[in-house]
Amino acid sequence: MSRKTKESEHNLPTLADVATRAGVSTATVSRCLNSPDQVQESTRDRVMTAVQELGYSPNFGARALAARRTNTIGAIIPTMENAIFARAIQAFQEELHASGVTLLVSSSSYRAEIEEEQIRTLVARGADALLLIGHDRSPAIYQFLENRGIPVLISWAYDPEVARLSIGFDNRRAMAGLATEVLRQGHQQIGIISADCVGNDRARARVDGVHDAMRAQGLDPATAHLIETHYSIENGARAMRRLMDLTPRPTAVICGNDVLAVGAVQMARELGLAVPGDVSITGFDDIELARVVDPPLTTVHVPHRDMGRQAARLLVDMVAGHPASESVLLETNLCLRGTLAPPPV
Amino acid sequence: MSRKTKESEHNLPTLADVATRAGVSTATVSRCLNSPDQVQESTRDRVMTAVQELGYSPNFGARALAARRTNTIGAIIPTMENAIFARAIQAFQEELHASGVTLLVSSSSYRAEIEEEQIRTLVARGADALLLIGHDRSPAIYQFLENRGIPVLISWAYDPEVARLSIGFDNRRAMAGLATEVLRQGHQQIGIISADCVGNDRARARVDGVHDAMRAQGLDPATAHLIETHYSIENGARAMRRLMDLTPRPTAVICGNDVLAVGAVQMARELGLAVPGDVSITGFDDIELARVVDPPLTTVHVPHRDMGRQAARLLVDMVAGHPASESVLLETNLCLRGTLAPPPV
Repeated sequence: MSRKTKESEHNLPTLADVATRAGVSTATVSRCLNSPDQVQESTRDRVMTAVQELGYSPNFGARALAARRTNTIGAIIPTMENAIFARAIQAFQEELHASGVTLLVSSSSYRAEIEEEQIRTLVARGADALLLIGHDRSPAIYQFLENRGIPVLISWAYDPEVARLSIGFDNRRAMAGLATEVLRQGHQQIGIISADCVGNDRARARVDGVHDAMRAQGLDPATAHLIETHYSIENGARAMRRLMDLTPRPTAVICGNDVLAVGAVQMARELGLAVPGDVSITGFDDIELARVVDPPLTTVHVPHRDMGRQAARLLVDMVAGHPASESVLLETNLCLRGTLAPPPV
Repeated sequence: MSRKTKESEHNLPTLADVATRAGVSTATVSRCLNSPDQVQESTRDRVMTAVQELGYSPNFGARALAARRTNTIGAIIPTMENAIFARAIQAFQEELHASGVTLLVSSSSYRAEIEEEQIRTLVARGADALLLIGHDRSPAIYQFLENRGIPVLISWAYDPEVARLSIGFDNRRAMAGLATEVLRQGHQQIGIISADCVGNDRARARVDGVHDAMRAQGLDPATAHLIETHYSIENGARAMRRLMDLTPRPTAVICGNDVLAVGAVQMARELGLAVPGDVSITGFDDIELARVVDPPLTTVHVPHRDMGRQAARLLVDMVAGHPASESVLLETNLCLRGTLAPPPV
């Protein structure tokens, strides 16, 4: 089924539809889109609401004219820093390239409103399909994508409760596996350094995983001290300093990703604490940083390249009108390296 | 001066122009663009050559129709891995966002043909302007961008010999400064691990910088053993192993960037060599990795964030019809950390 067929089926909105809904002339709609500062704010708000509700995109006319695919796929990742998403996106791009598709990437700084703007921009620029990270976003934007008939694949997350097509891993179960190993080594005072959980289903699932493991061992999850912060080495270090000031002091700090964990290792060193002699620290992702830090991080290996490659194939199939019928679950595995040991006696 | 004015001044090519030049009907041109596999290869080659020579882009009609800016700027970086470009691109994006412009990024895997395809895609998708890394690329693609009236800013490089507008630093002088310090500490046996110099003006300039410093100290640059490889930690390690097998063995290894240097440090450890006791190692860039490795890298600090922010302002001005009159030179500075010391006696 070609995009053209899809578009006619979806009966895509026109400039005139927007004008009717907003109760203005098509010229006014056009002016709102082209020179918004020449239009009264109240009119502009009315028009933009209609644009959003109808899922109208200014270049639709051009696309209908062309009635063809652009062989461009968009991906929006939360950040380009620290190469958290780099390996998967690189593999994703190489696989798309092999299919003659060019990848355009945006990074949203983990901000929902920026991601929405980028989704709309990529659609307006003619992206045939989108790769997005995680499920958390407003129903309005999913509706917009559905109205426009743009195939979307969610990655970095696999949640059997969500019907939307995704490729990823079970963040909760993977983190529970790591936390179970931490507890098995005898730790009872647990610190957690996580990304902000609001708007980040992966971060939430990982914290839930730690709590699951504690419950399974008869520990009260409320005793784990949780600090939420943005992913960065500096923030990991800062959170570690706060955790090390607690009484009783955590003997193990479970971090939401490797970047935070590397910051924690550096802070431990700065505070004169031996890792893992005085405090154990764990990461998540197994990015290159995990093996560069000394000692190398105990972490969860995520099959980034494999996820990227498979995501590309799934999206190319979706654009060609052959969507996969089921989400894809990838396995992660525990990397026991140098930062985890039993607590000091 | 608006884009519309620019486009009419440049007298942009039409589908008919392509047809005339290729000696085919407009329907054939259209078919070549939309369903290339339905067209004989010889015809397709003729048409695509005409498309390229004229700088025709299929969505031009749509853009002329819209006759407005898309508020989208494209950037093509060589790689997303190892966060070499991440900090600058993040700052670039934040500054563009503040101006209401959305950034679309592609990464070319350091391959010229992929970069060309991405440039054409970003232009076809309506990018108002492009940020590109380094000067090295075919004259045809610069001509294409000029024909299309797309403002281009080169970054990561400042070369007073090149007229094209750029913002960057003097790779050659910066590396010469670092190499001078290495030589001042008494090293005479120098190894160099560089990115592939072909198609990478930054890598070439850095190697030239090492040679400049050697010459200034009365050393023959030919005595420096140079290994070229792709930027990756593994490749840095592999090159280091080869250098450590040489007789006489280099007492200092100057790396083209921090990623290669981190690989070299890891290999030195694996070979039982103390850094910097047995061998000194230096990087370039001062990415986060440089401070995570133990000992922390002696390197050249590049003002990535500042470069990204300023590049955004320059490009926004260029799109608005106010191009800067001169390229911008940013200062780098030497970071003397733990991996450089005098050679063993």
